[in-house]
Amino acid sequence: MRLAIDPPLDPAAYSFRHRLRARFAETDAMGVVHHSVYALYCEQARVEWMRHLGHDYQALRDEGVDFAVVELFTQFRGPVRFDDEVVVHVGLGRPSRATFQVGYLLTVDDRTCATAVTVHGCVRSDGRATRMPQWLHEVSSRRPLPLR
Amino acid sequence: MRLAIDPPLDPAAYSFRHRLRARFAETDAMGVVHHSVYALYCEQARVEWMRHLGHDYQALRDEGVDFAVVELFTQFRGPVRFDDEVVVHVGLGRPSRATFQVGYLLTVDDRTCATAVTVHGCVRSDGRATRMPQWLHEVSSRRPLPLR
Amino acid sequence: MRLAIDPPLDPAAYSFRHRLRARFAETDAMGVVHHSVYALYCEQARVEWMRHLGHDYQALRDEGVDFAVVELFTQFRGPVRFDDEVVVHVGLGRPSRATFQVGYLLTVDDRTCATAVTVHGCVRSDGRATRMPQWLHEVSSRRPLPLR
Amino acid sequence: MRLAIDPPLDPAAYSFRHRLRARFAETDAMGVVHHSVYALYCEQARVEWMRHLGHDYQALRDEGVDFAVVELFTQFRGPVRFDDEVVVHVGLGRPSRATFQVGYLLTVDDRTCATAVTVHGCVRSDGRATRMPQWLHEVSSRRPLPLR
Repeated sequence: MRLAIDPPLDPAAYSFRHRLRARFAETDAMGVVHHSVYALYCEQARVEWMRHLGHDYQALRDEGVDFAVVELFTQFRGPVRFDDEVVVHVGLGRPSRATFQVGYLLTVDDRTCATAVTVHGCVRSDGRATRMPQWLHEVSSRRPLPLR
Repeated sequence: MRLAIDPPLDPAAYSFRHRLRARFAETDAMGVVHHSVYALYCEQARVEWMRHLGHDYQALRDEGVDFAVVELFTQFRGPVRFDDEVVVHVGLGRPSRATFQVGYLLTVDDRTCATAVTVHGCVRSDGRATRMPQWLHEVSSRRPLPLR
Repeated sequence: MRLAIDPPLDPAAYSFRHRLRARFAETDAMGVVHHSVYALYCEQARVEWMRHLGHDYQALRDEGVDFAVVELFTQFRGPVRFDDEVVVHVGLGRPSRATFQVGYLLTVDDRTCATAVTVHGCVRSDGRATRMPQWLHEVSSRRPLPLR
Repeated sequence: MRLAIDPPLDPAAYSFRHRLRARFAETDAMGVVHHSVYALYCEQARVEWMRHLGHDYQALRDEGVDFAVVELFTQFRGPVRFDDEVVVHVGLGRPSRATFQVGYLLTVDDRTCATAVTVHGCVRSDGRATRMPQWLHEVSSRRPLPLR
């Protein structure tokens, strides 16, 4: 288990936020957004966070590097409903040599809905591990998310 | 509009059937399977129909051919609910030179839930059109689905 | 087949546009957005169009009315790729007594990617048909999308 | 963090298995099944496991009880590709007073693809916690999955 960071409940601990709307198709027969959808919200916010840092994910992929997800942990703390405006707060943990971790806090109207962590490895198109981009080290050294 | 076949409501008109279970994640806040999911059911049944005909879709893809969807038409005639056992009946229309059409009837306990048609083109990995496999002509010549 | 409107390729024919980003999770092994996802883009744009008209879809649902999808037709005219900014143009056809039709044009950088039509019935929570809201008649009388 | 069980890599440690096929729509532009889809595979297998135990999930829902997911942890250990036959092995951990945990091992041709844990609370339709069904205690007492 590589999972190490503990995503804070305080939005101020995160360096980036992305806003999105819950789609009707994302709800289930319990009337709330299905738990599998939170991974899509985190991924969408992660891509926007990278763009904000000047690192377009598709440009990275065009260079032959992918950020494979090796672990995912989500704590569901309150429902997200259709048409809710979800704010996904994004922060980076301190990377190890082989992986980096991103933490997320999902809120609706300042209400906590979920926290999540994704652990990523850098891989080439053939699936083999490769070196992490230098900017990940720089970004994470500023104000990394706390450890568990 | 290439769409030409009219999928019959009689299951006997179809040459193949595939059985699947509606997943909970596929339902929406109306308590029924979301309309976008029917395209997944049709695709899954189409792949099983091809396997049944001895034409593994992945083997086809490994040879560099894809069956791109160029048109999709679905008529929603009754709800599919969580855990329903859906039977997807599959039949082929008479192909044109550039495209072929597949018709579907979706039933739950002999109740009609939907009919659908997908129109496909054969494309190579670079997206350019290519010749249709000979077996598609042979299969469709047997008992094609009726035209609209 | 209730499908009647023919969605124009000219963006100027539509009264509303909604902008969204293709998610990585929405792509498939062909490297493009999967065809089933276009229905989600149309639904999301339809909800934003209703909000723009002052008719919040959730408020409508809270009053016990749903806009069930009874038919869906999509023509796929060009690929959408990961991270593409998709513009969904939305217009309304002239409603019949029991249904109304919405037309869509999807573009990326002014390139046509798809056109689509959804046919809707108004239903109550028990699934029975109900009268269409008056505003739908008013909106459609202005500049309805052309018939097929 | 309630997550406590450590899903073994040995299939023999699990009491139930469910077999499914990876859909084309579930792949992404990396050519493998998207990480968010594994939660759907686990849910589908969990429903089949409950049916096998004589506890139909929809029947439970009809009685007003839902098994809400409160935590999800997945370790991605190898790719799942289109048309792969995935075996989802399912086992139960020892329940606490308020929650129970289910562990999963996903394999393709005896190759380990992922392990996962879902933590569930029993809730009534209004979202409030309720007592766990007695059969969960009985099942888990037999051969619970090991703790982390």
